[in-house]
Amino acid sequence: TCRLPDFATHQVGVAGAVLDESNGKVLVVQDKNKTKNAWKFPGGLSNPGENIGVTAVREVFEETGVRAEFRSLLSIRQQHNHPGAFGMSDMYLICRLSPLTFRINFCRLECLRCEWMEVGELARTGDTTPITSRVAKLLLYGFREGFDKVDLSMEELPAAYSGMFYQLYHRELPEAHRQP
Amino acid sequence: TCRLPDFATHQVGVAGAVLDESNGKVLVVQDKNKTKNAWKFPGGLSNPGENIGVTAVREVFEETGVRAEFRSLLSIRQQHNHPGAFGMSDMYLICRLSPLTFRINFCRLECLRCEWMEVGELARTGDTTPITSRVAKLLLYGFREGFDKVDLSMEELPAAYSGMFYQLYHRELPEAHRQP
Repeated sequence: TCRLPDFATHQVGVAGAVLDESNGKVLVVQDKNKTKNAWKFPGGLSNPGENIGVTAVREVFEETGVRAEFRSLLSIRQQHNHPGAFGMSDMYLICRLSPLTFRINFCRLECLRCEWMEVGELARTGDTTPITSRVAKLLLYGFREGFDKVDLSMEELPAAYSGMFYQLYHRELPEAHRQP
Repeated sequence: TCRLPDFATHQVGVAGAVLDESNGKVLVVQDKNKTKNAWKFPGGLSNPGENIGVTAVREVFEETGVRAEFRSLLSIRQQHNHPGAFGMSDMYLICRLSPLTFRINFCRLECLRCEWMEVGELARTGDTTPITSRVAKLLLYGFREGFDKVDLSMEELPAAYSGMFYQLYHRELPEAHRQP
């Protein structure tokens, strides 16, 4: 409807699952300021006006020192009233990235540990969060069977009225179905 | 990072693509207050604390009078500084719904027209927006080849620290890959 007030209700966080396809290892961190030392994907909040993939690449670099590039969107979480969000809702997106560099130089302000871990080990360990575990299983499935099984691809399309462009994410549409 | 201020930067809009699988027709509207009369899926802004699927079902009912149920998430769009958002960014999600009722009783405050249209016709027409056209092609692909080709399924998982639950959307993970 157009009868609701326009105001921002969500913060957007993005994590980057950087998978090295040459050895099946994924880049994981443990946050410094959490009680439970759970392995997670590096990530953080989007800056205003920042695209999802840009946030993922920036946060991965800031936290771990690893340069990476955006490949796809893997998962979206919506959560309401989570601790730290001050009553706002939270949209959290996990992207698949490919590494461009491999040497870890992690941020000691934010992280306690950082390493390249076998994605199968991350999928099995109890020392992680439920969402990280689930996305590790998705990554493992994609690594074994093809990433087309798990990826949402990104495309830029023109906005209807403004002449600007936006980013659209969905399952790959086969060429034959693009012009029905 | 945890060094950024926590504030909401995005409004979240949700549209519902209600597809009647018995005849391949989808519910579309034309907004009253737009210059170009483009066919679109009914939808609108999320209320604070409202889940994506709930917004889609509510907005479809408010605009068209049709009752429907959530099936899957199809597509995510991120857009910055679009007209009407006052500098905020916008996350727009399109869900696939199944109709529970079929009689249209549309809201004349918001809509000029509302009808059940063949999804193939919506995929072909020029009287629509680029995103609606793309999602119509995805729907047509799913209708013909199986919705597992296009759907992101939703699952509730426990949050790591709060004991609350959140909604996670991703590609269906085959049973054999859930416990690697």
